[in-house]
Amino acid sequence: MPAASSHAISDNSFDAAARDAVYEAIFTRRDVRSHFLPETIDDSVLARLLLAAHHAPSVGYMQPWNFIVIRDARRREQIRDLFLDARRQEAENIEGDRQALYRKLKLEGICESPLNLCITCDRSRSKNSPLGRWHNPEMDLYSTVCAVQNFWLAARAEGIGVGWVSILDSDALKCLLGIPGHVVPVAYLCVGRVSEFAPRPDLETHGWGKRLPLPDLIMSEIFGGTGEQRLKRAVNATQFSAAAVNRPEI
Amino acid sequence: MPAASSHAISDNSFDAAARDAVYEAIFTRRDVRSHFLPETIDDSVLARLLLAAHHAPSVGYMQPWNFIVIRDARRREQIRDLFLDARRQEAENIEGDRQALYRKLKLEGICESPLNLCITCDRSRSKNSPLGRWHNPEMDLYSTVCAVQNFWLAARAEGIGVGWVSILDSDALKCLLGIPGHVVPVAYLCVGRVSEFAPRPDLETHGWGKRLPLPDLIMSEIFGGTGEQRLKRAVNATQFSAAAVNRPEI
Repeated sequence: MPAASSHAISDNSFDAAARDAVYEAIFTRRDVRSHFLPETIDDSVLARLLLAAHHAPSVGYMQPWNFIVIRDARRREQIRDLFLDARRQEAENIEGDRQALYRKLKLEGICESPLNLCITCDRSRSKNSPLGRWHNPEMDLYSTVCAVQNFWLAARAEGIGVGWVSILDSDALKCLLGIPGHVVPVAYLCVGRVSEFAPRPDLETHGWGKRLPLPDLIMSEIFGGTGEQRLKRAVNATQFSAAAVNRPEI
Repeated sequence: MPAASSHAISDNSFDAAARDAVYEAIFTRRDVRSHFLPETIDDSVLARLLLAAHHAPSVGYMQPWNFIVIRDARRREQIRDLFLDARRQEAENIEGDRQALYRKLKLEGICESPLNLCITCDRSRSKNSPLGRWHNPEMDLYSTVCAVQNFWLAARAEGIGVGWVSILDSDALKCLLGIPGHVVPVAYLCVGRVSEFAPRPDLETHGWGKRLPLPDLIMSEIFGGTGEQRLKRAVNATQFSAAAVNRPEI
């Protein structure tokens, strides 16, 4: 790994180019629903992405995840049908003036992407050693989400788009994929090479929402605590917040 | 961002060095409990880490997170006391032959690290537009975890260690930090520069667990589905699985 060789001995930070690459993956990652190309993903590339996911942190070193690779077109059509049912139900529960916009949004690429991946959490995996879960049993689900995010960022670096479909009835999905009761399908992902990564999140482009100003989300010492003014000024002065985040190509 | 400039026009992937930097952050990230140095973190660096967190994916573009920066030594002692209470309770629930090992493990750096960060999820933030949460209301918690993982990986690139303390009673923590009922403290993090990043996860070094073989976690088409043999062989053949993952310095 070339990036490692240029580290200073007394400093654990990456060199500037390597550090920027990590930020670039973070800032240009998108929840992809369009622009999927039909080409298959090499096994060698998918293997790297899964290794990235598998190196997520996990509570008590539980590694509660499994990775179901779904390629079969018929099965994906069935899951697409589940999505359509779920979207219909959700649409009815969206506020009146937002429903029309909701119905226009493209919210999945289940059949267009060359493969789907269901990342699950086996809640029984550490039943004998629940380190870190006595007070917060949901930590295994959170660990699984960390694996999803590792996968997503590695995919961005490989030029592969990932879209997380959360508009699905979990019980119906479990039934279709034969997932047992003690296992939770945490994320259903559409995965594939893309013609482009959109410069901004789709939901921003289509007027569903805006990025909140980060300084408004920072609190000092307690919830709602004011203070940290110097930090908030530093946020606003951050160079790549202008360069990387707002530049149209990123 | 230098990494971007070397992209081929027809390819959205990073160049090899930039791609490797992303994998290096993923593979060398650690859940840090020891080796914290007392030096403060520059506001400019913390600002970058928070921007990374803030650019996580979020369901319906909800951005449900807040970031409580905790520096006060007395407050951190109080939280350390909460941890000690919680660890005592958890220890009693660990299997007999594992209890002695559990009690030896160092599981937090609340007072040694220069700052703590509580990342919360405001579950009411998108009450008028719950896109993607009708069937899976927990998606806002998952989005917040994605923010945690972005923060963690960016911190690794900056040479900053992060440890997630999950051995805490949430209600007691909420009381101490004045967190209202509709807000969930998803992650309590210890953050600081470190003298080293351990070559392996602490829980592996101390014999609590081993990394599971990734091929055993891959399934084909349905839960438990065999197949994907070529992909599993590709996992075992992945070059950096030998170089980066097993090399002692990584």
